[in-house]
Amino acid sequence: MSPLLDELVQALRCLPGVGAKSAQRMAFHLLERDRIGARRLAEKLVTAVDRIGFCNRCRTFSEAACCALCSASSRDDELLCVVETAADLYAVEQATGYRGRYFVLHGRLSPLDGRGPKELGLHQLADRLAEGLVRELIVATNPTVEGEATAHYLAEIARAAGVAPSRIAHGVPVGGELEYIDRSTLSHAFSGRLRV
Amino acid sequence: MSPLLDELVQALRCLPGVGAKSAQRMAFHLLERDRIGARRLAEKLVTAVDRIGFCNRCRTFSEAACCALCSASSRDDELLCVVETAADLYAVEQATGYRGRYFVLHGRLSPLDGRGPKELGLHQLADRLAEGLVRELIVATNPTVEGEATAHYLAEIARAAGVAPSRIAHGVPVGGELEYIDRSTLSHAFSGRLRV
Repeated sequence: MSPLLDELVQALRCLPGVGAKSAQRMAFHLLERDRIGARRLAEKLVTAVDRIGFCNRCRTFSEAACCALCSASSRDDELLCVVETAADLYAVEQATGYRGRYFVLHGRLSPLDGRGPKELGLHQLADRLAEGLVRELIVATNPTVEGEATAHYLAEIARAAGVAPSRIAHGVPVGGELEYIDRSTLSHAFSGRLRV
Repeated sequence: MSPLLDELVQALRCLPGVGAKSAQRMAFHLLERDRIGARRLAEKLVTAVDRIGFCNRCRTFSEAACCALCSASSRDDELLCVVETAADLYAVEQATGYRGRYFVLHGRLSPLDGRGPKELGLHQLADRLAEGLVRELIVATNPTVEGEATAHYLAEIARAAGVAPSRIAHGVPVGGELEYIDRSTLSHAFSGRLRV
């Protein structure tokens, strides 16, 4: 194989779920049928990596210091929903009628992987609750073992700040990933949340 | 979603087999965990699109005017194998012990899609056979209806030039794609080729 083609195939393997065979198929497809698309993808990758950072307030992906969701005046400041990933935030936003604010952990408590309260920005979350605006902290971490542990920890932080914690309902299958649940189940779990 | 993130998700959909959900997952993965990989991918895409063209002689992807397979003095000039795509060429190269030359059609005869002999470079193939070096033309188009039609056409071109045409054996399942066959089946089909 031409060295440059081989390098492209290797580079494509950084994409999740893409093995050697798929990467080769993608490379051939782009070279044979969509060079314009390939060039546009390269451009968007560079722009995204250069310009997309994290929102100062909710830690989701944002090209501005404060993201659109945090700066929107129409959202309810009394509700704060904590999710593990930005993908989960978009899943909740698309599936439910939730109009409050968000906080993105970018992970879950996992001491063995070096992910403690600091990595998840929990000091920042505590500061946010200390502002006194939030009345309910909706914990929407995934229903996995580590997600549940994180949920308990978050509930304690909320209680310490005098904020009522709640957990989205178990309708979401245990062991599943929030990002991939069908919208109605997620919406149901969201509206059926229980005080903890 | 941030506009730049949305643009990245859209751009990722140029990849074959990548829908809205996978594209979103890829974008989040790259931004969250592999920005270095994303930047390298962008770079390799641009280099590949800018510098990979087609070999003058066999029409496969090549960054040089004449590819490594065509310029290798160790290959047998008496054997010429015709494949539909560059991916098929690599599949044959990896699966079989074939040591002859190749010719890549970049498609198959399909008049309704505007793919006639000209688009497949068949005049170039005829010129190649007229050079007088080739003694056997191995037709390795896919065993689909259009691939078979192309194979018949290629056999006629070979006969007109006084070259013996052969077809890889049917061991390859009909309706399948050469690119995805397991190596042993492909190798078997290759060595069991029959005169047509």
